Amino acid sequence: MSHELEQEKSKQACKIMDELDLDVWLVWVRETSQMADPVLELILGADLVWQSALLYSRNGEKVAIVGNFDADGIKSTGVFDKIVPYTQSITEDFLTELDRLAPKNIGINFSTNDVTADGLSVGMHMLLKEMLKDTKHIDVLTSAEALIGKLRGRKVAGELTRIEKAVEITERIFDESQQFVRVGLTELQVYDFFHQRMREYGVSSAWYEDHNPAVDAGPNKQFGHSGPTDSKLKSGHLLHFDFGVKYEGYCSDIQRMFFLGSELEVPEEIKTAFQAVNDAITAASEFVKPGIKGHEADAVARDLVKERGYEEYQHALGHQLGRNAHDGGTLLGPLWDRYGETPNGIVEEGNVFTLELYVSTENYGQLSLEEDIIVTSTGCRFLSQRQLELVYID
Amino acid sequence: MSHELEQEKSKQACKIMDELDLDVWLVWVRETSQMADPVLELILGADLVWQSALLYSRNGEKVAIVGNFDADGIKSTGVFDKIVPYTQSITEDFLTELDRLAPKNIGINFSTNDVTADGLSVGMHMLLKEMLKDTKHIDVLTSAEALIGKLRGRKVAGELTRIEKAVEITERIFDESQQFVRVGLTELQVYDFFHQRMREYGVSSAWYEDHNPAVDAGPNKQFGHSGPTDSKLKSGHLLHFDFGVKYEGYCSDIQRMFFLGSELEVPEEIKTAFQAVNDAITAASEFVKPGIKGHEADAVARDLVKERGYEEYQHALGHQLGRNAHDGGTLLGPLWDRYGETPNGIVEEGNVFTLELYVSTENYGQLSLEEDIIVTSTGCRFLSQRQLELVYID
Repeated sequence: MSHELEQEKSKQACKIMDELDLDVWLVWVRETSQMADPVLELILGADLVWQSALLYSRNGEKVAIVGNFDADGIKSTGVFDKIVPYTQSITEDFLTELDRLAPKNIGINFSTNDVTADGLSVGMHMLLKEMLKDTKHIDVLTSAEALIGKLRGRKVAGELTRIEKAVEITERIFDESQQFVRVGLTELQVYDFFHQRMREYGVSSAWYEDHNPAVDAGPNKQFGHSGPTDSKLKSGHLLHFDFGVKYEGYCSDIQRMFFLGSELEVPEEIKTAFQAVNDAITAASEFVKPGIKGHEADAVARDLVKERGYEEYQHALGHQLGRNAHDGGTLLGPLWDRYGETPNGIVEEGNVFTLELYVSTENYGQLSLEEDIIVTSTGCRFLSQRQLELVYID
Repeated sequence: MSHELEQEKSKQACKIMDELDLDVWLVWVRETSQMADPVLELILGADLVWQSALLYSRNGEKVAIVGNFDADGIKSTGVFDKIVPYTQSITEDFLTELDRLAPKNIGINFSTNDVTADGLSVGMHMLLKEMLKDTKHIDVLTSAEALIGKLRGRKVAGELTRIEKAVEITERIFDESQQFVRVGLTELQVYDFFHQRMREYGVSSAWYEDHNPAVDAGPNKQFGHSGPTDSKLKSGHLLHFDFGVKYEGYCSDIQRMFFLGSELEVPEEIKTAFQAVNDAITAASEFVKPGIKGHEADAVARDLVKERGYEEYQHALGHQLGRNAHDGGTLLGPLWDRYGETPNGIVEEGNVFTLELYVSTENYGQLSLEEDIIVTSTGCRFLSQRQLELVYID
């Protein structure tokens, strides 16, 4: 089981630390099969059972202090230069290594803004403070949020390839579903078809599979995070999907709209809504480039749908995509309380975002689309093949 | 998708709160597909995206304050009596509900001892303290560790049935493997056989699948948490497995020893070691009953192997088994620093534990077995069919 990607991301972490003037990054974890710090899969790809201190230095050195039973597994990842196994207590070896590195600051994984940079638990934080209480290290603990945001956000080639493959499989399943979907089926039957195809392609669910894909038939279901029901698909109704797969650990996230009828039968208000959503995605995609702030991109799309007379969508225009469907870091979102500081983040080259929004029609429920993009040096490029017209199920 | 078990565990939580004199339990989470508080799968079985406050009252009332997109999904679990959806900020609704409940204490999920009771992240704790800073609630926050330990530990009928089924499938795969395992195969080929069978039975891995099953051939591999390699199975060697599956969310965890040769060829030192391990498991099983402390059971087995002249095993005799292979709460372990207070916990009726230990032979590596037990009103009962002799692969 190769850990090339995790090795590369670990090296990238040290480079970003140097850029951010961070001396040491401490990932401090235990029993990660129960609750894993979200950075672990990005930089290690292995489980740790006993209390473990992973130390990254800006000069590139990587040291793991781990339980003796964990040592072989960690060694086999090839991520660390030095592995210090312990039997009864980690404290002494941990302090020895920390003293040797003598950092002027130590990043640890907490963040009020970003769940992917908030992997340290309260109990583990208490244990850390107890171990460091008589040392100078306790005074130089700081948040590693900026490091983690950049590390997740700046996709390396191996990550982008995996996301592209996840997007490709998602689109293939959407294509195949057009032969299956028909009036009279229930949302749950359509959901089952998607899952059968996922098993066929050997991919897993990009988020909790209860509501992946979301299958929303007809006008009465508010789109969100609820699962498919036994409601039946009816002629003349819209059918909405929100669907993402995980391929070799990396996610896609795409929304599509089907119409249960022919092109000739589509009511004007659906056409107008579809155009508004698509125009907002186009406008945002033309605006996104390195250096802008997240909320600026959101505002472009939000203003457009408001100008067209629709209520604004009650979520962010776009989130990053990677190991997670919601991959943390900079958010293309409005400056709302619940998004914290993430919409003030800067968009960088190599970031992968969703662009997604809905508008509400009067008689047909919500109309929502979602595409995936990668930020290039001068703008952005669509990873998904845009849905530029409704899918008609005749 | 039925949530009967989660509904039952949620009701059980309120009863245990009353027993522990805890007025309110607050589960405070966000973006749980990235990092989930380990209690969520036990009491909810659904994802939450926005900041969410789940409030349990000792009088049985259960209130969820969740983002508007999450509301339908949470409602469909049937766990909560009242759901309060919000759009931009949770603060006002959260404080209103908390004021109404007027608790004299509020349990939150942090623990230095037990990872399964330590689901609150540092960033979320900061946000909570900020929200409560001008209220009296901030002074009555306390750890919910005791509640969570008892809630996880006291298995209800539906949980025990699932664990028994997981154990049964694990044993069936071990049985089937006897037809497949032979000299000349690699550890990885044996590993692949187990995974093919797991897919066949529709079960997933009880822990990180990299090292599940652990397949350890020959004398030179220290048992632990490392994965299978391309080492070949050789005649006259021992073959060790550590294997667990997850069936409908509940785990088994069993170790077995094969010998690559006939019964007549087994060296004396292997026989003696096998007997010592088995006798230690027997002695511990005869000792375990409600009311004892975890470390007392560990000492029974540990003393026995030391009396037989072996070095003591470098781990705990037994951990609880449930939603996780390491299910937290009371540990049948020695009073070592890294186990915190967990070996001082009290064994209760309905707890499911592993009993596992190894001894080291001089020429054949380690010999390790692991069985699963349930604590009854007067003692314990084996859930696994004990391995009382080596499996011979001729």
